[in-house]
Amino acid sequence: MLRIAVLGCGRIGGMHAANIAAHPRAALAAVYDVHRPSADDTAARHGVSVAETAEAVFASPEVDAVLIATATPTHADYIEQSVAAGKPVLCEKPIDLSLARVNACAEAIRGRDPVIQLGFNRRFDPGHRAARDAMRAGEIGDLHQVVITSRDPGMPSRAYYEAAGGLFRDMTIHDFDLARFMLDEEPEEVFAIGGRLIDPALMAELDDFDTAMVILRTASGRQCHINNSRTASYGYDQRVELLGTTGMLISGNRKPHEVSHFSARHTEKAAPYLNFFVERYHEAFNAEIGAFVDAVEKGIPPEVGFEDGRRALILAEAAMKSAAEGRFVRVSEIG
Amino acid sequence: MLRIAVLGCGRIGGMHAANIAAHPRAALAAVYDVHRPSADDTAARHGVSVAETAEAVFASPEVDAVLIATATPTHADYIEQSVAAGKPVLCEKPIDLSLARVNACAEAIRGRDPVIQLGFNRRFDPGHRAARDAMRAGEIGDLHQVVITSRDPGMPSRAYYEAAGGLFRDMTIHDFDLARFMLDEEPEEVFAIGGRLIDPALMAELDDFDTAMVILRTASGRQCHINNSRTASYGYDQRVELLGTTGMLISGNRKPHEVSHFSARHTEKAAPYLNFFVERYHEAFNAEIGAFVDAVEKGIPPEVGFEDGRRALILAEAAMKSAAEGRFVRVSEIG
Amino acid sequence: MLRIAVLGCGRIGGMHAANIAAHPRAALAAVYDVHRPSADDTAARHGVSVAETAEAVFASPEVDAVLIATATPTHADYIEQSVAAGKPVLCEKPIDLSLARVNACAEAIRGRDPVIQLGFNRRFDPGHRAARDAMRAGEIGDLHQVVITSRDPGMPSRAYYEAAGGLFRDMTIHDFDLARFMLDEEPEEVFAIGGRLIDPALMAELDDFDTAMVILRTASGRQCHINNSRTASYGYDQRVELLGTTGMLISGNRKPHEVSHFSARHTEKAAPYLNFFVERYHEAFNAEIGAFVDAVEKGIPPEVGFEDGRRALILAEAAMKSAAEGRFVRVSEIG
Amino acid sequence: MLRIAVLGCGRIGGMHAANIAAHPRAALAAVYDVHRPSADDTAARHGVSVAETAEAVFASPEVDAVLIATATPTHADYIEQSVAAGKPVLCEKPIDLSLARVNACAEAIRGRDPVIQLGFNRRFDPGHRAARDAMRAGEIGDLHQVVITSRDPGMPSRAYYEAAGGLFRDMTIHDFDLARFMLDEEPEEVFAIGGRLIDPALMAELDDFDTAMVILRTASGRQCHINNSRTASYGYDQRVELLGTTGMLISGNRKPHEVSHFSARHTEKAAPYLNFFVERYHEAFNAEIGAFVDAVEKGIPPEVGFEDGRRALILAEAAMKSAAEGRFVRVSEIG
Repeated sequence: MLRIAVLGCGRIGGMHAANIAAHPRAALAAVYDVHRPSADDTAARHGVSVAETAEAVFASPEVDAVLIATATPTHADYIEQSVAAGKPVLCEKPIDLSLARVNACAEAIRGRDPVIQLGFNRRFDPGHRAARDAMRAGEIGDLHQVVITSRDPGMPSRAYYEAAGGLFRDMTIHDFDLARFMLDEEPEEVFAIGGRLIDPALMAELDDFDTAMVILRTASGRQCHINNSRTASYGYDQRVELLGTTGMLISGNRKPHEVSHFSARHTEKAAPYLNFFVERYHEAFNAEIGAFVDAVEKGIPPEVGFEDGRRALILAEAAMKSAAEGRFVRVSEIG
Repeated sequence: MLRIAVLGCGRIGGMHAANIAAHPRAALAAVYDVHRPSADDTAARHGVSVAETAEAVFASPEVDAVLIATATPTHADYIEQSVAAGKPVLCEKPIDLSLARVNACAEAIRGRDPVIQLGFNRRFDPGHRAARDAMRAGEIGDLHQVVITSRDPGMPSRAYYEAAGGLFRDMTIHDFDLARFMLDEEPEEVFAIGGRLIDPALMAELDDFDTAMVILRTASGRQCHINNSRTASYGYDQRVELLGTTGMLISGNRKPHEVSHFSARHTEKAAPYLNFFVERYHEAFNAEIGAFVDAVEKGIPPEVGFEDGRRALILAEAAMKSAAEGRFVRVSEIG
Repeated sequence: MLRIAVLGCGRIGGMHAANIAAHPRAALAAVYDVHRPSADDTAARHGVSVAETAEAVFASPEVDAVLIATATPTHADYIEQSVAAGKPVLCEKPIDLSLARVNACAEAIRGRDPVIQLGFNRRFDPGHRAARDAMRAGEIGDLHQVVITSRDPGMPSRAYYEAAGGLFRDMTIHDFDLARFMLDEEPEEVFAIGGRLIDPALMAELDDFDTAMVILRTASGRQCHINNSRTASYGYDQRVELLGTTGMLISGNRKPHEVSHFSARHTEKAAPYLNFFVERYHEAFNAEIGAFVDAVEKGIPPEVGFEDGRRALILAEAAMKSAAEGRFVRVSEIG
Repeated sequence: MLRIAVLGCGRIGGMHAANIAAHPRAALAAVYDVHRPSADDTAARHGVSVAETAEAVFASPEVDAVLIATATPTHADYIEQSVAAGKPVLCEKPIDLSLARVNACAEAIRGRDPVIQLGFNRRFDPGHRAARDAMRAGEIGDLHQVVITSRDPGMPSRAYYEAAGGLFRDMTIHDFDLARFMLDEEPEEVFAIGGRLIDPALMAELDDFDTAMVILRTASGRQCHINNSRTASYGYDQRVELLGTTGMLISGNRKPHEVSHFSARHTEKAAPYLNFFVERYHEAFNAEIGAFVDAVEKGIPPEVGFEDGRRALILAEAAMKSAAEGRFVRVSEIG
């Protein structure tokens, strides 16, 4: 049993705490949150103790590893402290909104070798993973195009937007990682447009976007399209399509059940898709914990690590630059 | 070009006339209907002549073959007359409501050998046929179970009911033929129940049913279920399912287009199914004409002939007996 | 937290033990199995104690309720003992293979009032339940037909067959309960045929069936078809279809993920269905535990109780009689 | 009956001739092809005469209207001649590969007013049209994103490529028109990349592409993605997706039948999609003829006219420029 402490007991930290507590090979060691009542609440639910400070977690001999789900500006610091304490880390994305800070963090932890796994949960989704496995097994021949549809079921709060660092670094960053996972090759060029279609006033005020389209191209010419929106009224929309010379693979959405309704006005009417990431990626979040335990216990590199987090951020910055300048931006221009 | 005359210009005769007129290998030779205006109307639409009598059709040197779509009580007579005139026949089901009359007709035409094809159009449906072909090619191993769902989109008129001979001989007869087509073996036993659920008063008055369930069993033990209803509000429901030792095949319904709608209340909502047999079996009716032309031109037996019509009627009578007596009826008790 | 002891640590008992251990509102109190190593193994997995005897479980003040997953012949005895000890019971189906024993058990516990819930897990499946809820909410008008497809992914062992009491009491019994759940009315008549198509020699030797079709009819004339087979090579096949005057509802199968594959030879090829009940009804088994906890804590009748188990058994016996005699059997002939 | 002559008896001209011959409201008046045997063959199939020259067609009093399906360089000339002769035209896309020539043609026919309909058949597809109708009826709220998947089932011949004018003017031009049809607003900016992934050597030699991705943006900010490939091994892939504030619409692909196959290795395996445009857009091509007859008979503007052809070409030129320069190109830069 790997004893994992959870830093940050918000929506996603709370979910991770529950997953760890229920995991057959992990135990919830302790929780911490700058907002003490959140930590208390999570601790009570799972019968674990609350750490007074993050430092106490890093110092504790009862803690084997740390899951970082705190506010983004703390991620890099906590990674550095955890690494200094010799504790493996599973860190939510992004590492930081600043590429310079990410690079400094990389420098700070260089040469030390604990597992640092990034929270790109989608790589662990059974569907997305089965699609990629089939592609790599040759079931569609040579890969030519990837199409990623990624739409949230609704607009987050203003406060969320203010801290998120913009659509490309907050939302599309998951798709950039998924694109890298699927393309089997690094994207070299990025084109992106951002739109203010759902809440134009708020988006203009915050200089942010609620809708986006992206095109990526790899060195060998593979093409990838990503589309994002925060208005998928029909549920969290998460699809990946892979086109190759001899076939296509689609990893589609999940519904809560398989009931369909037929009437004089329609056939095959089904329930809305699972609403958001906690439900849609339930199995993925669990598999992510399992993969982290494996990496730590076997001393192997994590399936998705620090450098993956850095590269996804670089793609996000390239997208921001492209959206501003209206041109194909080379990834090498960024980092 | 095979010159085919159409006897009977009602809904189904009119459809056949149009299909023949548009068929690349057939020509509409003439039309006849006891109700002259119907014949005039159909003739005008296709620029052909109206025969004064059915006898004139059988006698005409301009007519190579006859399609019989008149009222059921005339079918056997017209078959006999057409055979006597040496003209191949494509006859709508049933041959007659009386098995004795069907047997007498069989006797009357014995030894003469024109093509007599029965209008069991479903055998020519691309989906049903592809399912059967796949089954016979071994794609599901040994066949164990057949499930036929066959539901009309609405109740016919009282006049239709009065002439139709009861649900089993009117509606289920198509499913009995389809069951024989799919089972690849003769059913030996029949169990059936009839229900009066849609219009109980009318059904009781006419001693008929609007809803039914049937089980058939063959000599080798294969099982077949048929369910019927005249209340498929979502469109004509025509499905066939074949279960075998190594797999299953389902031939499903057709929609007018593949548009699906997603909203906060549902996903994947599609259009109602094609409404009724003219639309749903459009390709089948055309293929039926083509198969008839082939049989006549090549002098080969029709794909579905007189004896198939007789056997479907026997199954219908067995079902009627079973529904009355509440027991498994052996087909050999009937005919 | 309801402290539940599990009697019987075979496949299904072991699954229940794990579900109880992970349930937020239940705790695994102890386990027992006549085969001590099975009990030891399950106990070790969840860190609980092994009871020396079933009697020790009933007597223990540390046990609030009992889940019975032992061999069928012990069910009625254990129910009686548990009731005598004042402990609520969640009992796997069937109560007993003998209706006389079931009736005696009913007599023995009459007047005492602990919760006795039967393990008809399918009632708790999110899909089946959503379909029934929609039907009861009027979304298909008046219900006319129910079609239940229920096929196991493979043949069980000879030993299993020898103890199971025949297809209708072992496998179809779940479908009889589901039919009662869906029909919203008691079936009054039963017709059934059994087949020996997968392993004819074994089935003949054991006087059992591996394939079946059933028709039920209620007092108001509602019709229900059930088909069973132990050869669903494509995965556990569990479908329910409800036809009403204004629409249809289908509760379909679940796949492990939503990946589809397209090639020159096919489109939309998906993964096999979830293999068997542990996977397919995972959510249902959890909801079943939750409903049991609710019933005990709130002192309300269970959603599916002793009388439901008795009625399903009566339908199974009626089916056996029908299969033997080839006729529609009235339920009132049985019990 | 509108008497329509067909100029050009290649694959698409031959198809149009057959559709006109079978159309209830149109008649095939004559055919012409610079390659006489093609014209003879088509004429013989439908029992019509062959015109010696295109000029003879324009002059004939037996010809009410002209369908132009000849080689692209003749389109503008024939449009001008047909208009001069007062005959309505249904012209295959593109009007010309040169925007200057298209503009000159527009000038030449200015002020005269016969119907000129462009052969953008996809607007008449029942699915695409139903999706657009539903969108315009408010079923998805405000439109934000359009995603068009448009992939051919295989590479055309080298000769075809040499005459086609490049992927964007040959293949994507249909998608540009469909995008305009769906966006309900003019695209103002175009970004495009072209790839040489299927036959890199041939594509490099011809300076052409076999794979492409495009992003369009309208004045109000609506976003549209198009992806193209000539390697849809699973059949002609033609999908349109519309995302709005309250829902989504998808117009999907058509199969030849609805048979699905289930086995130990897969479920729901269906047939490949209809192979190419003749099959997939069969209903659309017929509706296109019907709409042309309507426009001519009622003296109303065609549903898709000369200016639509010109605008689609402008978008294609913008895409070519974008692919060359790696930047968002404003449509106003082109024409």
